[in-house]
Amino acid sequence: MLVVMKGGATQKEIDAVVARIQEFGITPVPLPGAERMAIGTFGATSRAAAEAVESLPGVSEVVPVSRPFKLASREVIPEDTVVAVDGVPVGGSSPLAVIAGPCSVESRDQLLATARAVRAAGATIMRGGAFKPRSSPYTFRGLGPEGLELLSEARAETGLAICTEVLSPGDVDAVSQVADCLQIGARNMQNFALLDAVGEQPRPVLLKRGISATVEELLLSAEYVLAKGNRNVILCERGIRTFEKYTRNTFDVSAIPLLKRLTHLPVIGDPSHGTGKWYLVAPVALAAVAAGVDGLLVEVHPSPDHALSDGFESLTFENFADLMTKVSAVAGAIGRPVHAAARA
Amino acid sequence: MLVVMKGGATQKEIDAVVARIQEFGITPVPLPGAERMAIGTFGATSRAAAEAVESLPGVSEVVPVSRPFKLASREVIPEDTVVAVDGVPVGGSSPLAVIAGPCSVESRDQLLATARAVRAAGATIMRGGAFKPRSSPYTFRGLGPEGLELLSEARAETGLAICTEVLSPGDVDAVSQVADCLQIGARNMQNFALLDAVGEQPRPVLLKRGISATVEELLLSAEYVLAKGNRNVILCERGIRTFEKYTRNTFDVSAIPLLKRLTHLPVIGDPSHGTGKWYLVAPVALAAVAAGVDGLLVEVHPSPDHALSDGFESLTFENFADLMTKVSAVAGAIGRPVHAAARA
Amino acid sequence: MLVVMKGGATQKEIDAVVARIQEFGITPVPLPGAERMAIGTFGATSRAAAEAVESLPGVSEVVPVSRPFKLASREVIPEDTVVAVDGVPVGGSSPLAVIAGPCSVESRDQLLATARAVRAAGATIMRGGAFKPRSSPYTFRGLGPEGLELLSEARAETGLAICTEVLSPGDVDAVSQVADCLQIGARNMQNFALLDAVGEQPRPVLLKRGISATVEELLLSAEYVLAKGNRNVILCERGIRTFEKYTRNTFDVSAIPLLKRLTHLPVIGDPSHGTGKWYLVAPVALAAVAAGVDGLLVEVHPSPDHALSDGFESLTFENFADLMTKVSAVAGAIGRPVHAAARA
Amino acid sequence: MLVVMKGGATQKEIDAVVARIQEFGITPVPLPGAERMAIGTFGATSRAAAEAVESLPGVSEVVPVSRPFKLASREVIPEDTVVAVDGVPVGGSSPLAVIAGPCSVESRDQLLATARAVRAAGATIMRGGAFKPRSSPYTFRGLGPEGLELLSEARAETGLAICTEVLSPGDVDAVSQVADCLQIGARNMQNFALLDAVGEQPRPVLLKRGISATVEELLLSAEYVLAKGNRNVILCERGIRTFEKYTRNTFDVSAIPLLKRLTHLPVIGDPSHGTGKWYLVAPVALAAVAAGVDGLLVEVHPSPDHALSDGFESLTFENFADLMTKVSAVAGAIGRPVHAAARA
Repeated sequence: MLVVMKGGATQKEIDAVVARIQEFGITPVPLPGAERMAIGTFGATSRAAAEAVESLPGVSEVVPVSRPFKLASREVIPEDTVVAVDGVPVGGSSPLAVIAGPCSVESRDQLLATARAVRAAGATIMRGGAFKPRSSPYTFRGLGPEGLELLSEARAETGLAICTEVLSPGDVDAVSQVADCLQIGARNMQNFALLDAVGEQPRPVLLKRGISATVEELLLSAEYVLAKGNRNVILCERGIRTFEKYTRNTFDVSAIPLLKRLTHLPVIGDPSHGTGKWYLVAPVALAAVAAGVDGLLVEVHPSPDHALSDGFESLTFENFADLMTKVSAVAGAIGRPVHAAARA
Repeated sequence: MLVVMKGGATQKEIDAVVARIQEFGITPVPLPGAERMAIGTFGATSRAAAEAVESLPGVSEVVPVSRPFKLASREVIPEDTVVAVDGVPVGGSSPLAVIAGPCSVESRDQLLATARAVRAAGATIMRGGAFKPRSSPYTFRGLGPEGLELLSEARAETGLAICTEVLSPGDVDAVSQVADCLQIGARNMQNFALLDAVGEQPRPVLLKRGISATVEELLLSAEYVLAKGNRNVILCERGIRTFEKYTRNTFDVSAIPLLKRLTHLPVIGDPSHGTGKWYLVAPVALAAVAAGVDGLLVEVHPSPDHALSDGFESLTFENFADLMTKVSAVAGAIGRPVHAAARA
Repeated sequence: MLVVMKGGATQKEIDAVVARIQEFGITPVPLPGAERMAIGTFGATSRAAAEAVESLPGVSEVVPVSRPFKLASREVIPEDTVVAVDGVPVGGSSPLAVIAGPCSVESRDQLLATARAVRAAGATIMRGGAFKPRSSPYTFRGLGPEGLELLSEARAETGLAICTEVLSPGDVDAVSQVADCLQIGARNMQNFALLDAVGEQPRPVLLKRGISATVEELLLSAEYVLAKGNRNVILCERGIRTFEKYTRNTFDVSAIPLLKRLTHLPVIGDPSHGTGKWYLVAPVALAAVAAGVDGLLVEVHPSPDHALSDGFESLTFENFADLMTKVSAVAGAIGRPVHAAARA
Repeated sequence: MLVVMKGGATQKEIDAVVARIQEFGITPVPLPGAERMAIGTFGATSRAAAEAVESLPGVSEVVPVSRPFKLASREVIPEDTVVAVDGVPVGGSSPLAVIAGPCSVESRDQLLATARAVRAAGATIMRGGAFKPRSSPYTFRGLGPEGLELLSEARAETGLAICTEVLSPGDVDAVSQVADCLQIGARNMQNFALLDAVGEQPRPVLLKRGISATVEELLLSAEYVLAKGNRNVILCERGIRTFEKYTRNTFDVSAIPLLKRLTHLPVIGDPSHGTGKWYLVAPVALAAVAAGVDGLLVEVHPSPDHALSDGFESLTFENFADLMTKVSAVAGAIGRPVHAAARA
C-alpha cells in the first residue's frame, strides 16, 4: 500500500503511521514529496492494516497496491480456464457457446418448442428460470420444482445442457441435481451465503455481474466460489445501471476485454438484460462477439408479447436464427470458431 | 398505463394494441396526439399486460400509471407506522431513535465499552454485526453465534435494544431469538428468499437501501416483508453508488423527505456507510436530522484505527457524544423530540 | 402529455387541471384508473404547459408523449443523412469512415508522420487538437493557431480531410477556415452559444456525447445545430461516466443501434476516450463496428508514452494498422464496405 | 506519484520506468511488494510525466499523490475566503447568505414582486436568469439584455445585490456591467473559455458543480478563475446525475463538508435544482444548512405553475417565507448567524 500524508502532517504523525505499519509486521518506506509525505510498504498488506492506518491523524489517503483477488487472477493462473457444461466447453479457444431460452419456464409446450428452435439455430446450452427473482412480490416468481422437471425433460429430448438460476442456499441441492450449470443472478452477486453454497457443490457456476458491481467486485465474488473449491466459474457481463434510461441497463462492452485481461475465467455476454429492448439485442450481441466473449446468453420466446416476464427483450425464433447467422459471420471475422449448427 | 404509439403506426397496429389490451380485461381509450397516437386505460393493469403490449408492432413505449407498491404506500395506509424495537418507538412523532455501536462485534470488552458509551450519550438501540457481508472472502466475516451471545450480554447489562444483521434464510431463526431488530444489509436488499424469511418472523426489520436501488425498488423490497405479514419495517438511507469517488457512497439526503411522502414506514439515515469518512459523519448526520429522519444509525468504536472492519468511518466515543449534543440541537430546531439522555 | 393525479385528488383539483390545460389551447381527456385519475391530451403540448400543470395541487406527475427533437428525428426525416467531409462521405451506406490522429497537434514532425501512417493504414480523415479542453489550467492547452496551420499543411501533403475541435464561439471563424469538420467536445455538448455558432457556419459538425448526457440530450444538442440551418451533423458515442473506475469512461455500445433507430444522422464511435486504455481500444472499436457505426475516431501517436496529452489511450502506428485489418474483417462480416486502403 | 508494476514485470521493464522518471528530473524509489514492484517518487511530478510512465511496458497503474489544484486548496490558503457580493459577505463566519428569485426573468411585475417578497423574508441577494441554457432549442431562452435591465431596476428599488448567469465569453462584459455576481451554470462548469473570461473581470463568480463533475473537477474549474486573478469564487452544490429518477438530480449533501475541508472558498447549496421538486426544497435546504453551507440559492416565483421555466421546483412567496423561518432555527442550532430580516 501507499500511505499519503496530509500537506501539514507533523513529524509526530508520520512517526505514528510508521510505527502502526510496523505493528502489522510490514516494513514502511518514507517517500517525501514536494508538497507532502508518502509512505510505501514492502511486503503483503491486509485490508485491516490499510484501514487501521487510514484512520490515523495526519493521513490523507491509503492506496492499495496488490490486487485483492487471487484464484480468479490471471497473474496467479495464467492459462485460460475451460469450463465444461455437461460436455460443452466454454472458454479458451473453444467454439463460442450460445446459451438460449426463455426468461422463465412457463409450460411444457413453451419450453420444448423453444429448446428445439434454439438447438436448430446452433445453441448448445438452454437457459430457463424455474426460480425467478422479481422486484415486486406481486409478479410471477417462477414454477419452482415443476420448472426444474420441465427443464430436465427438455434436456432429455434435445440433448441441450441446462443452465438455470438458484436464489437461495436452501435450493442449491435441488437445483444442482437437475441443472448442468447454476446461475447466480445479478441481484445475488454479493449474496455471500449463496456463493459459499454453490462453491461447495460440483456443477459449474454462471456468475452474473451485479447491476452496480465493479469489475473488481465481480472478480471478488468469483473468488468466493473458487475459494470453496469449485473452479468452474463463468463470468457474465449483463449491463450496469447508469443515468441513461432509454435502455434497461448499459451494456459495458469494455468489461469483456478487461475481464479477459484480468482473469483466466470464461466471460460471456447477455445482450437481452444488457439492453432490455429486443431490437437492440442483435447489434449488442454482435458487439460482444467482436469484443471477444467466450459465449452469449440470449432470451428467446415463442411469442415474446405473451411472455410472463421480460417479453420485451426476448427474440422470436426467427430473429434468433437470424442472429445466429450474423454471430457466425462476426465470430469468423475475428477467428473464433462456432458450432457446426450455427454455421449451417 | 399509457401506451404511446410510434409516429408512423398504422391503424392496423393501433387496432392490435387495442385488442391485446382488451384480452387482459382492461378498457383501452385511444388518445390521438399531434404527432402520434397514445392509448390510455381504465382500470388496474398488470406488469404482464404492460409487457405484452410493449412488444407489439408500432408501440413506442408503455408508461405505467399506478404505483407498484401497496402495503408500503402512504396512499393505502395514510398514518405513520410506529415500530417498537424492544419498547423503543421509531417513527411518527416518537423521539429521534439513535442506533449506535461498532460495525462488527469483535470482543466482549470492545462491545461492552461501546454499549456503555453510546447509552451514556443518548443512544437507545445498539448495533453490532455478528455476521458480516464482505466483498472479499479473505477478510473478517464476523464472530457468528459467539457475537450474538455477546450482544445478548451487552443488552442485559445496559438495557439497550439490539439490532444486528442477518445474511441468510438459514440464520434467521438464530438471529431472531437474540435480536430485537433484524437488519437486512444493502447487498441483500433484493435477496428475496431472505426478505420472505424475515417477513415470517416477529421481530422488526431494518431494511437498508441497496447501493444502486431506486426509492421505488426499496419500497418494493419492503413490500416483500409486509406481504408476509410483518408490518414492522424501518427503512434506511445509507448512500448510493455514483461516479464520485471521494466519498465511499453518495448519501441521498433527498430520499428522506421523498420516502416520508411516499410511505408511512419510519425512515432512518446511516451517515457512516453513507460517507465512509469519519470526518463527514457528523455534518451528514445533522443534515439527515434536518431533512426529517426518524432515527440515525451510527458506527462507534473504542479505537477506530484498530477496528477489524470499517474503522475509517467509525466515530470515537468522544466524537459520538459531541455529535449527540449537536443532533439534539438540530432536532430541537425542527421540533423533533430527543431522548432525555441525549439532551443531558 | 399524460397528467397522473394523486390517489386522493379531489374533483376540484381534477377540474382545475382540466381548466389549466384548456388555457393552453389543448384538449384534455380524463382517464379514470383503478387507484387514481389520469388526464391525457389531444394535440401538441409545450413544455411550458407541462410544467404549469405539474405544479397544480393534486397532480402526481406529468408524462410527455411527443419527442422533443424534430429535425434530428428519423420520424421527421426517414432517410439516412450522408455528411460529406471534404468529399469523404459519412453515413448511409458509405464505407466506414475512419478518423485518426493524435489527441493534440504537438509538432510538424509528429503530425506529418502520423498523417502518413494513418493514411497508409486506411484512414480518410485526420484528427488532431489545436485547441484542447483540459480539466486543469496548468496542463498543455494546445498550440492554437499554429496547430491549425500544421493541420493545413498535413492536409496539403496527404490529402486527408481534417477534423479539429473548436472551444469557443470566438474561435469558430478561424477554425472553420481551416478545418473540413468542426468537432464539439463532450464538455461542450451543452455549450449552447457554441452550438449556435457552429450551426451558422458551413462545415460539417462532429458532435460528441457529453459524459453524462442521455441519448435524448445528445439529439437535442444536435437539434441546436440543425435548427440554425447546418444539416451536416455527425454524432459520436465516446463513453459515459459511471461508477466503474477501471476504465476512464464506459463505452455505451447500445447507444449506437439506438441512435441509428432514432435519428437519420451518421453515428460514429470513439473507443480511445471511450475506454482510456490503449489495450481496450481495438476490441471496443471492433464492437462498435459490429454494432453498426458509420465510422470510428481513433487516437494514434508516433510515441504514445511521450504524448503531451492522453498518451495512455493512443495507439502506435503498428497497433493502428493491425486494428484496421481487423476492422475491415468485422465490417465485411456485417456487410459494411471499407475504403480500399483499409482492405490492403 | 506511485507507479505500480504488473505482477510479471521484468527487471528490464522496471529499469525502463526508472529511467523514464529520471528524464523528467524526478527521483524514483523502487518499492518491492509481495506480488509486484512499485516505484514511488520524490519531488513534484507533472501529469505529463505520469502519463508518459503509464504507457510503458510492464506498468499496471500510476497513482497521483499531490493534489492537482493549488489556489483553491486549503493547504495552500488555510484561512476561509470571504467573498463580498456588492457588500454582502459570503463565507467564513458571515451570516448565512440567501440568494433567491425566479429561474428566469420574465417581466417587470414578476421580478419586482419576487424581489420585494424575498427581501422581506430575509434574502440579501436576488437571482434571476436573463440568459438561460436550455436542453432544447425550442424552449424559452431568456429575455437577454432586457432581462439585465429589469434586474438593475429591481436592485435600485430593493437594494438587493444581483446574481445572474452568463453563457458565453462574448456576453461577459455586458453581464459584468450589471451583475454583482456572475453565475457559471452546471452545463458550463468545464467551458474553459468562459472560465477564463470571468476570471479576467472583477465581479465575484458563482460556480455551479456540473451534473457529473467530481468534487476535484469542480475545484479545478475554480482554479481556472483563480489562476486568472479573480479570487472571489463561490462554489455551489446543486445535485448530481445518478440512476435515481424520482428526483431531477441527487443533492450530494456530503460534498458540502468535503468542500469545506478541501478548500477555503465559500460553499453554497441549491436545493431547487438539486431536487427538482418544490416539496423537497425545504427539507433539503435545511439539510444543507445543517451540513455547513455558507449560503443557499433558492428559486422563488409569484405563481410557480405559470413560470416559463422550472416552475415545478420553485417556491411560492409563502413557502419561501416559511422556509426562511426554519432555516433561521437550524442555522441557530449549529451556531451560524443569519441576517436580521430572516430572524424577524
